[in-house]
Amino acid sequence: MRKIKVGILGATGMVGQRFVQLLEGHPWFEVTGLAASEQSAGKAYEDAVAGRWKISADIPAYARRMKVKECRPNLGCKLVFSALDAAVAGPIEEEFARAGYVVSSNSRNHRMDSDVPLLIPEVNSEHLALIKRQQQQRKWKGFIVTNPNCSTIHMVLALKPLMDRFGIEKVLVTTMQALSGAGYPGVASMDIIDNVYPYIGMEEEKVQTETLKLLGKLGSNRVEDAKVAVSAQCNRVNVSDGHTECVSVKLSKAATEKDIINAFENFNPLKQLKLPSSPQHPIVVRKEADRPQPRIDRMAEKGMASVVGRIRPCSVLDYKFVVLGHNTIRGAAGAAILNAELMKAKGLIG
Amino acid sequence: MRKIKVGILGATGMVGQRFVQLLEGHPWFEVTGLAASEQSAGKAYEDAVAGRWKISADIPAYARRMKVKECRPNLGCKLVFSALDAAVAGPIEEEFARAGYVVSSNSRNHRMDSDVPLLIPEVNSEHLALIKRQQQQRKWKGFIVTNPNCSTIHMVLALKPLMDRFGIEKVLVTTMQALSGAGYPGVASMDIIDNVYPYIGMEEEKVQTETLKLLGKLGSNRVEDAKVAVSAQCNRVNVSDGHTECVSVKLSKAATEKDIINAFENFNPLKQLKLPSSPQHPIVVRKEADRPQPRIDRMAEKGMASVVGRIRPCSVLDYKFVVLGHNTIRGAAGAAILNAELMKAKGLIG
Amino acid sequence: MRKIKVGILGATGMVGQRFVQLLEGHPWFEVTGLAASEQSAGKAYEDAVAGRWKISADIPAYARRMKVKECRPNLGCKLVFSALDAAVAGPIEEEFARAGYVVSSNSRNHRMDSDVPLLIPEVNSEHLALIKRQQQQRKWKGFIVTNPNCSTIHMVLALKPLMDRFGIEKVLVTTMQALSGAGYPGVASMDIIDNVYPYIGMEEEKVQTETLKLLGKLGSNRVEDAKVAVSAQCNRVNVSDGHTECVSVKLSKAATEKDIINAFENFNPLKQLKLPSSPQHPIVVRKEADRPQPRIDRMAEKGMASVVGRIRPCSVLDYKFVVLGHNTIRGAAGAAILNAELMKAKGLIG
Amino acid sequence: MRKIKVGILGATGMVGQRFVQLLEGHPWFEVTGLAASEQSAGKAYEDAVAGRWKISADIPAYARRMKVKECRPNLGCKLVFSALDAAVAGPIEEEFARAGYVVSSNSRNHRMDSDVPLLIPEVNSEHLALIKRQQQQRKWKGFIVTNPNCSTIHMVLALKPLMDRFGIEKVLVTTMQALSGAGYPGVASMDIIDNVYPYIGMEEEKVQTETLKLLGKLGSNRVEDAKVAVSAQCNRVNVSDGHTECVSVKLSKAATEKDIINAFENFNPLKQLKLPSSPQHPIVVRKEADRPQPRIDRMAEKGMASVVGRIRPCSVLDYKFVVLGHNTIRGAAGAAILNAELMKAKGLIG
Repeated sequence: MRKIKVGILGATGMVGQRFVQLLEGHPWFEVTGLAASEQSAGKAYEDAVAGRWKISADIPAYARRMKVKECRPNLGCKLVFSALDAAVAGPIEEEFARAGYVVSSNSRNHRMDSDVPLLIPEVNSEHLALIKRQQQQRKWKGFIVTNPNCSTIHMVLALKPLMDRFGIEKVLVTTMQALSGAGYPGVASMDIIDNVYPYIGMEEEKVQTETLKLLGKLGSNRVEDAKVAVSAQCNRVNVSDGHTECVSVKLSKAATEKDIINAFENFNPLKQLKLPSSPQHPIVVRKEADRPQPRIDRMAEKGMASVVGRIRPCSVLDYKFVVLGHNTIRGAAGAAILNAELMKAKGLIG
Repeated sequence: MRKIKVGILGATGMVGQRFVQLLEGHPWFEVTGLAASEQSAGKAYEDAVAGRWKISADIPAYARRMKVKECRPNLGCKLVFSALDAAVAGPIEEEFARAGYVVSSNSRNHRMDSDVPLLIPEVNSEHLALIKRQQQQRKWKGFIVTNPNCSTIHMVLALKPLMDRFGIEKVLVTTMQALSGAGYPGVASMDIIDNVYPYIGMEEEKVQTETLKLLGKLGSNRVEDAKVAVSAQCNRVNVSDGHTECVSVKLSKAATEKDIINAFENFNPLKQLKLPSSPQHPIVVRKEADRPQPRIDRMAEKGMASVVGRIRPCSVLDYKFVVLGHNTIRGAAGAAILNAELMKAKGLIG
Repeated sequence: MRKIKVGILGATGMVGQRFVQLLEGHPWFEVTGLAASEQSAGKAYEDAVAGRWKISADIPAYARRMKVKECRPNLGCKLVFSALDAAVAGPIEEEFARAGYVVSSNSRNHRMDSDVPLLIPEVNSEHLALIKRQQQQRKWKGFIVTNPNCSTIHMVLALKPLMDRFGIEKVLVTTMQALSGAGYPGVASMDIIDNVYPYIGMEEEKVQTETLKLLGKLGSNRVEDAKVAVSAQCNRVNVSDGHTECVSVKLSKAATEKDIINAFENFNPLKQLKLPSSPQHPIVVRKEADRPQPRIDRMAEKGMASVVGRIRPCSVLDYKFVVLGHNTIRGAAGAAILNAELMKAKGLIG
Repeated sequence: MRKIKVGILGATGMVGQRFVQLLEGHPWFEVTGLAASEQSAGKAYEDAVAGRWKISADIPAYARRMKVKECRPNLGCKLVFSALDAAVAGPIEEEFARAGYVVSSNSRNHRMDSDVPLLIPEVNSEHLALIKRQQQQRKWKGFIVTNPNCSTIHMVLALKPLMDRFGIEKVLVTTMQALSGAGYPGVASMDIIDNVYPYIGMEEEKVQTETLKLLGKLGSNRVEDAKVAVSAQCNRVNVSDGHTECVSVKLSKAATEKDIINAFENFNPLKQLKLPSSPQHPIVVRKEADRPQPRIDRMAEKGMASVVGRIRPCSVLDYKFVVLGHNTIRGAAGAAILNAELMKAKGLIG
């Protein structure tokens, strides 16, 4: 199979770097264009990220000498991954879609647009039907598909099998989120050393609204929000990668602890598709009393799984558990790549 | 006023050290006895804690050369503070009470005994009436009074004014607890660096049961548990001192956000008593979007306040907020000292 | 005594905040002017530092509603403390000195000027004689006095008694510096979590050059650099406050370990002056095998001491030891305040 | 090639776990025996390390159900890796060697024995000649070979090419060592949060003495210590894995910075042997101003390289630089495995 040429928008930031790393040697996609802001444009990628490459020892060889371009739709590829800052992502992504590109975006700007799929392949692949409407309505040759916020993805992956089997009425979540979620330089070290920072701008709103769309039913024109009450408290803790979330849920139907575990362990709706980045187990259940832990579990299934543990009854709602996942892999760049793989498998790209 | 002679049981541990520190220069109490395990007995205090004094640069001068005794009721004082390990606290505290000592204990062993007050002076001072029953039933000259677990104290201080004004039906709390709560050596550094540890043995149970007793009504013979559903998820985070707790509550009566703030800010039931360790404001309300934070707020009111912030509606229950407090001051040693001050003021000591 | 009116230049930054805090209730000085950049000018101080007040729970009451001014010499006081950023400090400090102000500066801009004292009161108070020359040469009514870099101060405080008694030929130092030294936001959390950052721009140069001036002899016109070889390796570590420095020295004369300890412990050249911020022991010697430690020892003598420990022979030079001190108190704001107190005591102010 | 059967002594500790992990799928060695203390003996490995497996998400499949044995020489293999605690390693290792086993030990007990090689394959492979003498003298069928302390290995790897080309007269080193070096539970979190711990028992002595043996010349009967003065200051910092060391050296011959870099980059004495765990570049030189950093560089060459950076002149000795390496891979388990690979390649095993 000839590889599909892809570009990365916002390639120099924290999530952009993850795209560069995760796409090294990808079996379906080949990075042919790296785009970023004007300051970076024209430089070799390694010079553009000098002093800011933060995720491993070395920049992948393929990207080092690639010349960074501006974010204009002349990247010579069909698919772009967007890791653009929300301040600029909106119109740039639209420009690419208008010009015929498939845009798989991690940015929040278009997530809640009624004709844009907010997608987790294991959760709501049927929402891809919105693309058609999006193209008609906006008269675009290409289209935009988005992935959710990093906290939302892992929580919703864990909620989905419960929703399917037992129904969910209420969800209360307190998050303990990693530093890398804030980008670079992001959180000041003086704000997090020996500390918890109990506020992340707009994060609680995102968790609360995105969840409803992700779990919602596809109507004729749009997704109807799921009828679930969701309340989130979001905190930053002194962890490099990996969001930990304490979740309580109220179910519609009675379920035993064993039922819950079964639901998690047997959840694997993508199994047949054999997508390259698809984890063998989207939800890994840990049974030790003290798991999941970010430093130990964030790389489960190469960072593409949500790891659930401490499943037990909740005296206020029905059950409570801890879910953990890598925030810049499954929670960002890996999510957008998996979305693109699904679209490729469904014949929507290429 | 002549000072009351007091002893400290378990004086060499983390909470014991806090007692030693907080009682330096106390206007009512004078430490005349330090007691600990057999290994420490016979040594000068500074030798007994060598390499284990962890809370400040220097051991208070008064304690340094004091000879550590065994935990036997011959300490030549009326009041003892107990920071004993739960493995041994039960019978030792009983022995002291039997011998006529007032025991103000931070240990968990007797907290849930039906005839032992589990006390927060601002919350349930009327529970001191249990002492009489305790002495009759057990035929003791002295008695035991306990303070709650470090997480429970701060949460219940925040719940009390809401309970009084609006009633509380449900409470969901996720804690992010400090390392000092586990004593010394306590949490291994390899378990907490770049990590969240999602489990603290017995902690959730303590928060759930102690809260009901603290908010319960004094019946004829015992405290009747409050009719509140409480569910806790407890985590350890990489913070030295100061527990942060994300709380959601369902109230019995409607309340506006302003009502809630008023309830917190006007809560000061001990005002008239002028106890030496009593904070001016037991509940400090912070209005900044990003407060309270442990590193910045844990020493509010010399570590004796509970600091509340981020008060806002909860879409699952009614309101949510963050409460933070120092776990070894108001959450442990300072709590037991305040309890003793209340008892002194009520004529129960001396 | 009527208090001397003082101003703070750069009052909103990390060191500026320390000045505001340390000058609260100062017996000799009264803050009457807070000055900062144009963005802050015109705002109440508490509004100007909103979200950036980082050193304790609350802004001192005296400063909260004080209106921040621009950095122009119309602050209505005699003495200003400068915590200005090096990018702007140079000309602003000169303007104040020209206008008759005494400028006690923490900024690096004028430290190495041949007619500006680089001062540690216990080390080289005789260098104040440069002021006269400075005023003549520059035709200024006021003058500038500076304190050294935060790492240099603590190392030189420890070197001085050795220099006096035994002579020093060579100094090798490796520092492990705190985050607060980089200001706010300063070091990105992603650069320091689970990490050591082995580079601090210009820091090694400052330690190497400032030390020579501080230990130098006052000549007729200028200070002659001490004849000492100094080599520094400077690192940032995950510590909020308190620089730790591993020092090795080659002495000119033989000395026993006991001689060294004696030299440290008996070093107190300011004793007679009774300056308000002067520590009782400028050098605190710890004899435990595992001290000094930043979290435990940084507040020794209210943050104004240098704490020395682990004194032992060095098989390459003669002796090695660890010195630790608070970098924003004795290492910055407290240093400038002590310098001003010395100048007041010497009749140079007011 | 049929794989050589190997055992691991002390398989449940931190370094033992690394052996288990690094030997998974090893091309030459196959783990057939796991041995540990009496408490662990008889248990399945996964049960023996329950709650103590700390280095990754999952125990390698091959080891999980393997039954842990006692440390007696009936493990049915030829080669054992020893990660035993120094308190017990001495006689147990001797017993294995006496019984005919090749013992590749990470423990310190026999490192300084005159007839035991203290080995870094790239540095002193000729010291393997001591084995013959060891066997004759002790009348053993097997023998013991040791690897150095984790700090020493990385420093000496960096010193070796300088020694060979320019000679070394003096070395001053200050280390900032990772937590994993202290085992588990090891360093208490309360001792390292917001802190530097300036003392590691016996570490400075090890660095100072082991270096001399490693760089020493093989005499007729023993290794003659290198004539180098070495002085170390060792600190623990809040880093999970990866020791950072600031080194200054005095050379015997003049060298330019470029000479130094050349010496590092061309150092690869094992190239021809193609040992499975041998890094392509034993010394990786980083030229960025702010490298090496433990979180970013510790896994260079799969954790088997020493990463050097910040090479620059030293005003007290001749040159200074920073060297960093993984302390439980190249600094411990990986070192012993590479030693065994060298011995296999030299025909000393099997």
